[in-house]
Amino acid sequence: MEIFQVEAPLVCTRRVDGLQQLGLRILRDINGKRSVAVDTIGARNGNWVFTVNGSAARYATGDYSVLTDLTIGGIIDHWETEATVTGKSNNQE
Amino acid sequence: MEIFQVEAPLVCTRRVDGLQQLGLRILRDINGKRSVAVDTIGARNGNWVFTVNGSAARYATGDYSVLTDLTIGGIIDHWETEATVTGKSNNQE
Amino acid sequence: MEIFQVEAPLVCTRRVDGLQQLGLRILRDINGKRSVAVDTIGARNGNWVFTVNGSAARYATGDYSVLTDLTIGGIIDHWETEATVTGKSNNQE
Amino acid sequence: MEIFQVEAPLVCTRRVDGLQQLGLRILRDINGKRSVAVDTIGARNGNWVFTVNGSAARYATGDYSVLTDLTIGGIIDHWETEATVTGKSNNQE
Amino acid sequence: MEIFQVEAPLVCTRRVDGLQQLGLRILRDINGKRSVAVDTIGARNGNWVFTVNGSAARYATGDYSVLTDLTIGGIIDHWETEATVTGKSNNQE
Repeated sequence: MEIFQVEAPLVCTRRVDGLQQLGLRILRDINGKRSVAVDTIGARNGNWVFTVNGSAARYATGDYSVLTDLTIGGIIDHWETEATVTGKSNNQE
Repeated sequence: MEIFQVEAPLVCTRRVDGLQQLGLRILRDINGKRSVAVDTIGARNGNWVFTVNGSAARYATGDYSVLTDLTIGGIIDHWETEATVTGKSNNQE
Repeated sequence: MEIFQVEAPLVCTRRVDGLQQLGLRILRDINGKRSVAVDTIGARNGNWVFTVNGSAARYATGDYSVLTDLTIGGIIDHWETEATVTGKSNNQE
Repeated sequence: MEIFQVEAPLVCTRRVDGLQQLGLRILRDINGKRSVAVDTIGARNGNWVFTVNGSAARYATGDYSVLTDLTIGGIIDHWETEATVTGKSNNQE
Repeated sequence: MEIFQVEAPLVCTRRVDGLQQLGLRILRDINGKRSVAVDTIGARNGNWVFTVNGSAARYATGDYSVLTDLTIGGIIDHWETEATVTGKSNNQE
């Protein structure tokens, strides 16, 4: 599972049927690379999250027929290390 | 799901049977790396799209027997950030 | 299967149901890139481990319905090479 | 699906049973990185091809029990862009 | 399928049940990056091999319940190119 920061909702009116009307988010990894993920838990801009990819991403939506390969798996509260620069408690809104 | 720009249709007369006669597109990511995707929603050259990969790519075509690992999932309208350089509203045709 | 060092437990209260209450760990690869994995064998901070990814990661938890794409597969004791710099016997605690 | 150029047949007498006696090809991507793919359509050295990976690679061989994760999906004729440097019509033999 | 050189057996006493007692090998790619693979064909240190990844890796072991995402698919004898620097006939033992 990979670590990303939520950047913005994605507006996308023309899409394959399998994605239904699920919320899509633009995510950025620590190097700035953007990906698109389905969000079913209500992550907000600026949240650090981890994502589930591959076939598990479909199960993670709660509906296997949803056609995603990347779904937000959880919002990161924090982890304990001596030198954590990113990823700690970014849930201020 | 990854973000690409549609570059051109791909002409490919000799192919495995499983791809049928589906439209193939050359896509480029932000670093210029090219991939090949199945297109079932009518993306045009210059469109920014996101893609579904892995086994979900087959479901995304509407026909699980289609042999693809990358299918265009939707055309990106735009997303809201303060400093979006690429990917915003490239649907002019 | 990839090689990582366990960095810290991940605290994550808001997560998809499919992850249940399983332990999550922040891992770092040799280049410092962080990933998140499910741990079912009790790896500790500083341990070098290898991970199982993709659909096998779900089987590796012993419960296919767990929604992970990365699970710790084993703790590395050591391997025999002439010039091993990392990864040899980091199980001191 | 990724783009590669066929470099050479691979000679490999000791292999897992699941690969049967299928033809294997060494492929190179645009950066020179080599991979190994199953070929069922008769690609020749120098051809530019695209490949199907993951579980679709098994279906692409026409026999799901073949144990490959990379199968040549088609031979690229050409694509239309203003500045195509590589990948255009390399089927001269 | 990717190309690696076998570096050493991996000693790993604490592992998930799904890996059984199968032999594990440390592999290195051409850039020196290490991975861990299941070996069922008896590859030796120094051999150049190609690997099967994803769900095919489980089938490649001959037992689908084995929890691997990387299995050695075959030992490379050689391939014919004008300028092969690596990978040709490294089976001396």
